[in-house]
Amino acid sequence: MMRKIILAWCVAGFSVLAASAAGTVEQWGIFEVALPGPTNGNPFLDVKFAAQFKQGDVTVTADGFYDGDGMYRVRFMPEKTGEWRYETVSGARALNGKRGAFTVVKPAADNHGPVRVANTYHFAYADGAPYKELGTTCYVWQLQAEALQEQTLRTLATAPFNKIRFCVFPKRYTWNTNEPILYPFAGNPATTNWDFTQFNVKYFQHLEQRVADLQKLGIEADVILFHPYDEGHWGFDRMPAAVDDRYLHYVIARLAAYRNVWWSLANEWDFMKEKKEADFVRFGEIVSHDDPYHHLLSIHNGSKIFNHTLPWITHASIQNGAAVEEPGRAELYRDAYRKPVVYDEVKYEGNIASRWGQLSAEELVFRFWNGTVAGTYVGHGETYKSDDQILWWSKGGVLKGQSPARLAFLKKVLDDAPAEGIEPVDKWQNPEYGGKAPDYYLVYLGKASPTNWEFKLPKPPQGKGQPPADGMKFTVEVLDTWNMTVTPVSGVFTLQKKDGYFYGDKDGRVVELPGRPYMAVRIKRVRE
Amino acid sequence: MMRKIILAWCVAGFSVLAASAAGTVEQWGIFEVALPGPTNGNPFLDVKFAAQFKQGDVTVTADGFYDGDGMYRVRFMPEKTGEWRYETVSGARALNGKRGAFTVVKPAADNHGPVRVANTYHFAYADGAPYKELGTTCYVWQLQAEALQEQTLRTLATAPFNKIRFCVFPKRYTWNTNEPILYPFAGNPATTNWDFTQFNVKYFQHLEQRVADLQKLGIEADVILFHPYDEGHWGFDRMPAAVDDRYLHYVIARLAAYRNVWWSLANEWDFMKEKKEADFVRFGEIVSHDDPYHHLLSIHNGSKIFNHTLPWITHASIQNGAAVEEPGRAELYRDAYRKPVVYDEVKYEGNIASRWGQLSAEELVFRFWNGTVAGTYVGHGETYKSDDQILWWSKGGVLKGQSPARLAFLKKVLDDAPAEGIEPVDKWQNPEYGGKAPDYYLVYLGKASPTNWEFKLPKPPQGKGQPPADGMKFTVEVLDTWNMTVTPVSGVFTLQKKDGYFYGDKDGRVVELPGRPYMAVRIKRVRE
Repeated sequence: MMRKIILAWCVAGFSVLAASAAGTVEQWGIFEVALPGPTNGNPFLDVKFAAQFKQGDVTVTADGFYDGDGMYRVRFMPEKTGEWRYETVSGARALNGKRGAFTVVKPAADNHGPVRVANTYHFAYADGAPYKELGTTCYVWQLQAEALQEQTLRTLATAPFNKIRFCVFPKRYTWNTNEPILYPFAGNPATTNWDFTQFNVKYFQHLEQRVADLQKLGIEADVILFHPYDEGHWGFDRMPAAVDDRYLHYVIARLAAYRNVWWSLANEWDFMKEKKEADFVRFGEIVSHDDPYHHLLSIHNGSKIFNHTLPWITHASIQNGAAVEEPGRAELYRDAYRKPVVYDEVKYEGNIASRWGQLSAEELVFRFWNGTVAGTYVGHGETYKSDDQILWWSKGGVLKGQSPARLAFLKKVLDDAPAEGIEPVDKWQNPEYGGKAPDYYLVYLGKASPTNWEFKLPKPPQGKGQPPADGMKFTVEVLDTWNMTVTPVSGVFTLQKKDGYFYGDKDGRVVELPGRPYMAVRIKRVRE
Repeated sequence: MMRKIILAWCVAGFSVLAASAAGTVEQWGIFEVALPGPTNGNPFLDVKFAAQFKQGDVTVTADGFYDGDGMYRVRFMPEKTGEWRYETVSGARALNGKRGAFTVVKPAADNHGPVRVANTYHFAYADGAPYKELGTTCYVWQLQAEALQEQTLRTLATAPFNKIRFCVFPKRYTWNTNEPILYPFAGNPATTNWDFTQFNVKYFQHLEQRVADLQKLGIEADVILFHPYDEGHWGFDRMPAAVDDRYLHYVIARLAAYRNVWWSLANEWDFMKEKKEADFVRFGEIVSHDDPYHHLLSIHNGSKIFNHTLPWITHASIQNGAAVEEPGRAELYRDAYRKPVVYDEVKYEGNIASRWGQLSAEELVFRFWNGTVAGTYVGHGETYKSDDQILWWSKGGVLKGQSPARLAFLKKVLDDAPAEGIEPVDKWQNPEYGGKAPDYYLVYLGKASPTNWEFKLPKPPQGKGQPPADGMKFTVEVLDTWNMTVTPVSGVFTLQKKDGYFYGDKDGRVVELPGRPYMAVRIKRVRE
């Protein structure tokens, strides 16, 4: 998947070593040029290194980085198949003007490229394959003991999640007071006396390995670049601006070529007391500028939501549990931002004392469904008290809750839904209807426990898809979102206009329901 | 209130006539310079006319306009007391270089200046007096028969509303198929063959008169500059871009000096099929640029909400009835826009067939209260079927509904509330609490019919005002928002911490309630 080409270092000086080791790499894979270079002074500060990758009229410039032990690397994620050429650019003679060529071949079956925004409010892989976001959160899983990390990966391998949010920097917070296995800078952990001019390359090599491990599992890595859960303990939340910026350049140079990377500028940005809002605007502009592939980029809030209309923000990453307490709330941010809305934090399934960590599994699954029929995406997290202090939300490990199985059921429903994504059908009138009118409807009944549901389909608002019409035929299934069952309703429902706003069944049929909460009705058009 | 100075026209040419008629005008009143000028050609197209008004380092440039019959006017709303000087600027010699001086005196008691944004989410008059927005809608009241207009003004004189939304252009729509009393352009109404280069000055003189009439009643005029309720009948919804822009310049030159003007770029902008979103951005930039006083400026949506984060938009004017169905929804746009949110259209009290015009009075008042405790503002409208085709929402006349009396009650509550405005106290947890912690709380219980309410006050989120504390004392009143009663609860409630999130009464007191819906609890701190 990653093809590394290590070029011999031309110690003598003036001659330029042309790259002869042409190779192949798959589309959206990683082509890496590794070159020995200067070791005097501080390579992190003193050496600028980049490469231009060219195919026809297309030129992509990627920054390189110092990887320790005298080795410099520059990585490239080709977005097109065919022949590419490259040439390195550096003020250091050993790293300048190295040229080469390589062939980009079709991707392997499990490689669909990076995830992009699609259909305004939704996502898709670069090759067009649907991506129905269903994420979880383990803030610093990769900084725990090795065995725990491996356990987290095994858990993820069978869990329904296709995205995981985690932090680059270590975290210090309730339930997470242990030190990380590694530190991002050279220095003395005991005194937290860091040399901010010296990255700890092992830290970032390890981070990359975990991003690659996630990629193998088909999981997007939502990399959180800054967070407040430090409060000066290590001081990574209050570094000087120049250090912040250098850190961003470094992380992007290292990670941007991994196709499964998403950037989250910060977790709870407004709780970072030593930063101003303008700092995050600068960070966003840096990431947007540096990342040649424009991976998905957002920023997660505490109580103050960032301005997600800014052009470099690709989707709204929102913490607000209240917004998914019903579909009519969940939809509102879509109109404000006109971008995909991902409720990355809606409180967690668990039993800790904090009210953000004590949702029942039923409540968390309920919130996912509210968000789903509103045309948005919802995130999972789990905070069950544990003697070993290992809570999934912070450290990973194993999942103990009852929501993941139900989210796997939801995932199946999403995979069966229209590829374009589920849209609100009648957003300000009947927010419980999601779908793609008039072919597919998902009606979520939430906490109500009705014994039947009158079959009726709303007319979508002006200009929003084809309206239903008399004579159209539909099949209906009853979904028990908690007990994870799909029960087809016998027969076919045939539309007849009911009033100015609704179509019902021509015989007035109702759908029988079991009188339990958390039911949904799935309606699919039968094309004859 | 308006001081007009008509200068003699210097027919002879080269000499400049200095204004000798110095006068006085009150702050935020209108100082007008009227000058005879060219009548040859087309004065609307051919003559540029403006004036600079100066006081010390401050220079305000106001555009003038042709008012017919050979007369040109330029108007100025002084925002500072003291001596001002002016000089006119025009390519037409008769209108160029006229100078004068005048004195701006303190405003009369009922003149508080224009309304401005205050405290991020709220409004205040320029002199600092609180302005608690409570608006209504009569789209084309000023284009009905004279007697009906006068009746509308009489109704407004005793109604609770301090803002009214109405359109510059005539409207053609259900319940409003009559022709207007006047037309904005010269031309033939029968053939709708307009000369877009010739404004009908009588039309705009009349509009101004009605704005002035509203000002006398203490009512802000929310002037809607474009709307879709024409659909080509007259064609004012599909004029060429150059005509649109000239019209905007003309309206602003005429109206901007009226302190009670607000600009609404459009009603249901997205339903104007002949315009693009970029047209409205251009309109907004024109208004923002031309208006020397930067009156409040927004744009009202159909189903697609405008990007209210744009810098020239002062507040979010939103049509969305669903958003005020509960306080937890109403609050969400505040976070997205960080500006005042005015739900200018939430459906109307009435009984017509369209679902946007058949709210019960109870439901409309309920929506006002939901918006209020969420720190937003809500708009009124009324659509009761009538044989005379006069529905308040479109034509004015008399109010027939039951909501206005309850909105007058709400207005009293607002006037008694903190001047800074009501803020959500714990927005994503307990949206039914509005107020100003820890001094004032308004808890709205909506459609629930409880027989008691446990006295408890939430801790506001991090950094949002002073939290409540043990020992603080409060009085409580029970407000029946429908029956318009205020019932004090005897005794004082004394705080004691309840848990990590709430303070209750030290003796666990509850507030008795009558078991009816639409109740609110008002809690005020007793300072000893």
